[in-house]
Amino acid sequence: MLEGIAPLDEEAMEAARALQARLTKPAGSLGQLEELSVRLAGLAGVCPPPLPEPAALAVFAGDHGVHAQGVTPWPQEVTAQMVANFLAGGAVVNAFARQVGASVTVVDVGVAAPLEAADRLVNARVRAGTRDMAVGPALTRDEVTAALEAGTRIAFRLIDEGAGILLTGDMGIANTTPSAALIAAFTGTPASATTGRGTGVDDDTYVRKVAVVESALRLHAPDPGDPVGVLAAVGGLEHAALAGYILGAASRRVPVILDGVIAVSAALAAAALAPDAVGAMVGGHRSSEPGATVALRHLGLEPLIDLGLRLGEGSGAVLALPIVAAAVRVLHEVATFDSAGVSEK
Amino acid sequence: MLEGIAPLDEEAMEAARALQARLTKPAGSLGQLEELSVRLAGLAGVCPPPLPEPAALAVFAGDHGVHAQGVTPWPQEVTAQMVANFLAGGAVVNAFARQVGASVTVVDVGVAAPLEAADRLVNARVRAGTRDMAVGPALTRDEVTAALEAGTRIAFRLIDEGAGILLTGDMGIANTTPSAALIAAFTGTPASATTGRGTGVDDDTYVRKVAVVESALRLHAPDPGDPVGVLAAVGGLEHAALAGYILGAASRRVPVILDGVIAVSAALAAAALAPDAVGAMVGGHRSSEPGATVALRHLGLEPLIDLGLRLGEGSGAVLALPIVAAAVRVLHEVATFDSAGVSEK
Repeated sequence: MLEGIAPLDEEAMEAARALQARLTKPAGSLGQLEELSVRLAGLAGVCPPPLPEPAALAVFAGDHGVHAQGVTPWPQEVTAQMVANFLAGGAVVNAFARQVGASVTVVDVGVAAPLEAADRLVNARVRAGTRDMAVGPALTRDEVTAALEAGTRIAFRLIDEGAGILLTGDMGIANTTPSAALIAAFTGTPASATTGRGTGVDDDTYVRKVAVVESALRLHAPDPGDPVGVLAAVGGLEHAALAGYILGAASRRVPVILDGVIAVSAALAAAALAPDAVGAMVGGHRSSEPGATVALRHLGLEPLIDLGLRLGEGSGAVLALPIVAAAVRVLHEVATFDSAGVSEK
Repeated sequence: MLEGIAPLDEEAMEAARALQARLTKPAGSLGQLEELSVRLAGLAGVCPPPLPEPAALAVFAGDHGVHAQGVTPWPQEVTAQMVANFLAGGAVVNAFARQVGASVTVVDVGVAAPLEAADRLVNARVRAGTRDMAVGPALTRDEVTAALEAGTRIAFRLIDEGAGILLTGDMGIANTTPSAALIAAFTGTPASATTGRGTGVDDDTYVRKVAVVESALRLHAPDPGDPVGVLAAVGGLEHAALAGYILGAASRRVPVILDGVIAVSAALAAAALAPDAVGAMVGGHRSSEPGATVALRHLGLEPLIDLGLRLGEGSGAVLALPIVAAAVRVLHEVATFDSAGVSEK
């Protein structure tokens, strides 16, 4: 296991709680942001923790053999087309990232179609899409390990380049299907409660999608105690890479903001591999996909934003970034009752 | 009534809806942000609407005669002390504003204590705090009108200085009490359902606070059809100024992000004076004060952030700003399926 993945530092958390109580605001009046600032102090092992900047988003792209089962109305070619859109700066996540000042790196960890080389495109392709989980394991264990390592490598690279916070992003037509399977496998929740309508499937497709997830889970009977095995059976290459990326952030004690249902399903794999990695995770938003809420609850994370988003790409994580930064900034910049000469109640 | 307060422009909204449908994302995948972008197009009367920048926050400060009833454990002097803290840049809202790049202007519309002149402090004092609503009207109608006009003047000044979006802020020890009374009066909701624990009152104080609001409403029997009369009976100078500020933004077709329970109670007054002003309002966040939810529902606004904040100052409005900006930016910068060569489903 990666070094540095360890419990939050209790002393730094206690210092953050004590500081929060002295700042010029009523105790508890920042709600969820106070506890967030305490957790980030515990992660950094110091109070105040560093301001989480600059921010780096990695969008892991991959394709899915299960697309053949008709789980989505979108053609598989859209994965590669959207990679080109990210690289051209034309996708929603690019607009959001420009708004908040986050860099965007796209990582091909398993797109089916060939991609042209480009700036900010990292070629970490393990294979050209997964196999169809409906008929056999999506990946070999070696392929899962390679994708995990690719994700960790990207996290390390971004942190070495100066990133103070990482954000998760993903692109992969059909990837809510493996997400639903992963969440069901890791949390022991029925597929019907973890499967959603993704980017907008009709009633017939939804029924088929749930049946595909159920039948894959019956076929592989994945053991949640063997996270690599679960990822091999019903995962995606971007899911494995995201799990490695999250573990990489955790091992360097850098916070990582989770996006939607793909990210939180990968986070379950990361937490199964290293339970203390949860300390580095920030729930960015609550996707409208039902599986996201199941996974967030299992991880014990309360998301920051809940706006009915279901886009992926990292869009929800990027929107949460200024809130995370504001929570930390309070510990750096807000006056105390003493220093400001403000009376207490 | 102010010029320019009129319904949203249907044609611009239709254009925004049509544009959203052509952007490279599944239809509806941006949830609440899509409708927000449509409303802002309707407000501006053009699609895409201008990017909401730069952002200007005005913090309206005032004191409250009802403080004498023991509705809060905080001494009244804290209002003036916090004004000094805002001007020194040491309050939470200053840290949040620096995070998102918003300017902060403090407006003395009725602080009880004398204040030293300072940069970014506007002297618009109508009187040194309101009278005690528990024994008589808090304000005269003329005082309400003066505070409304002061708020509108500030909105116009900030817009003339270039602001593309306004944010509401407030400071006033005891000001959740008039807010609860205003929300009860304008929505016809019992005081017990509009009154909260503010900055943290104990059980005894809470019971007293509800009784004070109930008894003031019985004493004055304010008529919601006469908003100036309601503000005079149970309002605050910052509430009246905020209502004028909101109307000023609406008349210039500039969006205004509402902060918490003080802002939304003032917004009810603005909406009673000019119902179409609601089109300029953006619900910034859902304060944990129960009256905030009652008021937001009455206004038909769905807030963007829900993090259990109950600080005021404009803190929740400031946190919502990057989300509002991101929603508009999508209409400016995201590629269409055609332009990006992305296949549709």
